[in-house]
Amino acid sequence: MGTPVSESVPSAAVTTGPIEGSHKHYLELDHLRIPQRRIELTNGEHLDVYDTSGPYTDATAAVDVEGGLAPTRDSWQRPDPIDGAATQLAWARAGQVTDEMRFIAAREGVDVELVRSEVAIGRAVIPANHRHPECEPMIIGKRFAVKVNANIGNSAVSSSIAEEVEKMVWATRWGADTIMDLSTGKDIHTTREWIMRNSPVPVGTVPIYQALEKVKGDPTALTWEIYRDTVIEQAEQGVDYMTVHAGVLLRYVPLTARRVTGIVSRGGSIMAAWCLAHHEESFLYTHFAELCEIFRRYDITFSLGDGLRPGSIADANDEAQFAELRTLGELTGIAKSFGVQVMIEGPGHVPMHKIAENVRLEEELCEEAPFYTLGPLATDIAPAYDHITSAIGAAMIAQAGTAMLCYVTPKEHLGLPNRDDVKVGVITYKIAAHSADLAKGHPGAQQRDDALSKARFEFRWTDQFNLALDPDTAREYHDETMPAEPAKTAHFCSMCGPKFCSMRISADVRTYAEENGLVTAEDIDRKIAQEMAAKSAEFAESGNRVYLPLEATAGS
Amino acid sequence: MGTPVSESVPSAAVTTGPIEGSHKHYLELDHLRIPQRRIELTNGEHLDVYDTSGPYTDATAAVDVEGGLAPTRDSWQRPDPIDGAATQLAWARAGQVTDEMRFIAAREGVDVELVRSEVAIGRAVIPANHRHPECEPMIIGKRFAVKVNANIGNSAVSSSIAEEVEKMVWATRWGADTIMDLSTGKDIHTTREWIMRNSPVPVGTVPIYQALEKVKGDPTALTWEIYRDTVIEQAEQGVDYMTVHAGVLLRYVPLTARRVTGIVSRGGSIMAAWCLAHHEESFLYTHFAELCEIFRRYDITFSLGDGLRPGSIADANDEAQFAELRTLGELTGIAKSFGVQVMIEGPGHVPMHKIAENVRLEEELCEEAPFYTLGPLATDIAPAYDHITSAIGAAMIAQAGTAMLCYVTPKEHLGLPNRDDVKVGVITYKIAAHSADLAKGHPGAQQRDDALSKARFEFRWTDQFNLALDPDTAREYHDETMPAEPAKTAHFCSMCGPKFCSMRISADVRTYAEENGLVTAEDIDRKIAQEMAAKSAEFAESGNRVYLPLEATAGS
Repeated sequence: MGTPVSESVPSAAVTTGPIEGSHKHYLELDHLRIPQRRIELTNGEHLDVYDTSGPYTDATAAVDVEGGLAPTRDSWQRPDPIDGAATQLAWARAGQVTDEMRFIAAREGVDVELVRSEVAIGRAVIPANHRHPECEPMIIGKRFAVKVNANIGNSAVSSSIAEEVEKMVWATRWGADTIMDLSTGKDIHTTREWIMRNSPVPVGTVPIYQALEKVKGDPTALTWEIYRDTVIEQAEQGVDYMTVHAGVLLRYVPLTARRVTGIVSRGGSIMAAWCLAHHEESFLYTHFAELCEIFRRYDITFSLGDGLRPGSIADANDEAQFAELRTLGELTGIAKSFGVQVMIEGPGHVPMHKIAENVRLEEELCEEAPFYTLGPLATDIAPAYDHITSAIGAAMIAQAGTAMLCYVTPKEHLGLPNRDDVKVGVITYKIAAHSADLAKGHPGAQQRDDALSKARFEFRWTDQFNLALDPDTAREYHDETMPAEPAKTAHFCSMCGPKFCSMRISADVRTYAEENGLVTAEDIDRKIAQEMAAKSAEFAESGNRVYLPLEATAGS
Repeated sequence: MGTPVSESVPSAAVTTGPIEGSHKHYLELDHLRIPQRRIELTNGEHLDVYDTSGPYTDATAAVDVEGGLAPTRDSWQRPDPIDGAATQLAWARAGQVTDEMRFIAAREGVDVELVRSEVAIGRAVIPANHRHPECEPMIIGKRFAVKVNANIGNSAVSSSIAEEVEKMVWATRWGADTIMDLSTGKDIHTTREWIMRNSPVPVGTVPIYQALEKVKGDPTALTWEIYRDTVIEQAEQGVDYMTVHAGVLLRYVPLTARRVTGIVSRGGSIMAAWCLAHHEESFLYTHFAELCEIFRRYDITFSLGDGLRPGSIADANDEAQFAELRTLGELTGIAKSFGVQVMIEGPGHVPMHKIAENVRLEEELCEEAPFYTLGPLATDIAPAYDHITSAIGAAMIAQAGTAMLCYVTPKEHLGLPNRDDVKVGVITYKIAAHSADLAKGHPGAQQRDDALSKARFEFRWTDQFNLALDPDTAREYHDETMPAEPAKTAHFCSMCGPKFCSMRISADVRTYAEENGLVTAEDIDRKIAQEMAAKSAEFAESGNRVYLPLEATAGS
């Protein structure tokens, strides 16, 4: 691993092997191997779906957590820097197509020119630090599939390195497109090193957390130098994107004073505390250009943090939030002038009728940089169900144009997520993301819905389970009511029982329809038109009374 | 109970006692006692919330399941029938304010004239069969709080009467505003009798299910007479609203032939099978006027069923669905001409971008009769999580104007819900309904969000739990990470640990803001205007280059 480790993470500690009913499949494109998950169906067909899980679900891959994943991208062609910027943005602007772009185009099933042009104008980002060669490239942008981030990370209170690596493997197994390591405890560097070397997806961090550890948790003791050195330390490890709360300006801080929940972002409150204590402008803002210089060497993507995001329904879309957003727009322009990729973080807690405004303003103020939101929660009244309160907001904000959703687990506001919580959080957010893909008409998104619904209609229970986002739980729930194996092929389900089933009756309809020539929309329109004419006549004859007993007009 | 019972239901089988941290409170209004749940807070304040749970959560009430609840409404004034209609609609049209309307106005915190006028124009319904005097009146309409229905009911495969009564008590405990008894097995009459006599909320049924039992499950053997007698049997028991799939016309059936999932409504497919077998128009349609005559005697509310609702994303908003909706509009007019209250059932499975169209068309075609939808699921790919896929659609369709949401449990498509599933389904739908109330600006809705968020910000953990929709689970999750009792008063949480907490820092901001006179929106606007002017000057001086390193423009 190249770094001292205080704890050994045995390979046995991570989950390996394919998800039930599927296996790893690779699209071969020259020297690129693009992973997919192939779901085999019992009718001889198959469906290939986007696969974030890396080699862990490849039955033929040898997984060695201590050795890390293969540094595949090191063997790819990398263009020369342009004006100091060795970034996908700089290359895209110059018309150069990278291997990362080719990989992503195949992965998303789109033309590579769409990838290049969206990156070039800054409407999409490819978070891919040169020092994270284990990463399978992916793209975040509104023209592509909506992505999901899963936060992991120990805190001072609980958790171990082994647990965190497994959480990363576990989260990507169920579909996390990126993960953020939010560790705050001891061994923060080592934990991250293990995660980086084993992560097949981009890894994001919030460097201010580690910087704070270095000053023993006292925000007022932070300096630009300590922060900068922390960023470089993490850059060297390969962190792909970093949350920087550079929009929390001294003059905005008082705007939060009358809020119901003040400042709820940890990074935001650290910087607010610093600004207040020193009565100076944030060093993240005043040294932003230096940060850009560092980022463009590694191709680290900015995730400009919303340190003043609302922490409650009452505080949504307020002055503090939108003042900061304006500053994030200013910083977006600066970062892009350095050739650095940028995305913008968003709330938080927002009632449904105020969601679209967040996307509209973000796009207007931040040059359509990809929006990356935390939920938002559509109500505050359901702790223990905040994966659901936020999935509602997440689906809606993604439909409106948000490119990546940061998941929320059932433990939000209450405690740290365990393994089950991570899975529930990821699956819930895949639901939100996929619902938005459907609503946006993303090419191919509906194929999986159609395949699953067809399997359901044809009583192919096993296929229905395997096509689900979570085959294991679907199977388990079915087994609770209908445990026997023959039930998996039964042409009825537990809701109606064997005596009567609506699905079965529906099949009879098809035969009838074709026998009676009543199958097109035109057929029915003609029938209705005929009937309306007949009704008008009756209406006139009956003295134009508005309501008639139905029998008088309809007959049998 | 007055009916033969094949099984005794001991009172001990149902859940009693208040939800943690709250107790029953009654608003007294003449002879009316309107129930509320009073949540006591540790800071001496309290919050009263809408309470659907009946006497079961009243610590002072004697619960006797064999005796049933007190027939309170029998002692209320009931106006005389108007032109044969003894219905809330007829009375509302005649300008008469009933005790039910007064009860509801107090319960919703609105003027009684709003209740009367919305009922009078048919934009709201009060499902209250005269023979269900145990019912605490409630209203379903877009101008009032969004309601949630929970389906219960045994099937041929599993379940017992005792379980079903407890499911009703359990579902209303967590907030179900109505329940539907969808029993299909033996003892169907007796099960319903137990539920009716013990239900504090309106009960809905689908009479065709029981009619089908009477003809041993053969839909083609159904007749109008068998159906009518079943309706009268259920009407006598006190069923408050009935789903009638009278819009499934013979000529629409073939439109489902090319669907991915055909006809998925059980009632819809029964009627389709009947129509096809006899090659006749549906007896529900041809005898609709007779049905209205029955309904208006008891004041049963029509829930006009969407027998051709889509069962998959692929089938949403298709010809079959909207052809039926047009017929439901026609039937709405007829029912109202008899003075019978009507609501309209809606889908089902609908991608997000097609949701609003459902509400728009329903309102246009059905005289704005209250819309009552099942979800809809925003995607098909997550069996075992369909409470979530559908909560997304439910929140959105409620925001658009749907008045009541039929819950979906995690077992949807897979099996029958158990006790835990019922609770998760109800809580999930309370989230969707409440999110819509917030989005619609429903008076008072945000009070609970604000109270909970304030408790969160002030580290009043116990209040945060007790204000939650599910206090028990919130507490349990918190205990997993921070089990000790002192943690309930700790001024930090498990996410950040004791060393650093963003919530704590926020408190410091308030002091600062007031000391520096930076508290209003005007303060910040002035600051920004000043800065923009300064920047313009700098911009000109620097030769109008678009991007400048930040330090050059911002200083420190």
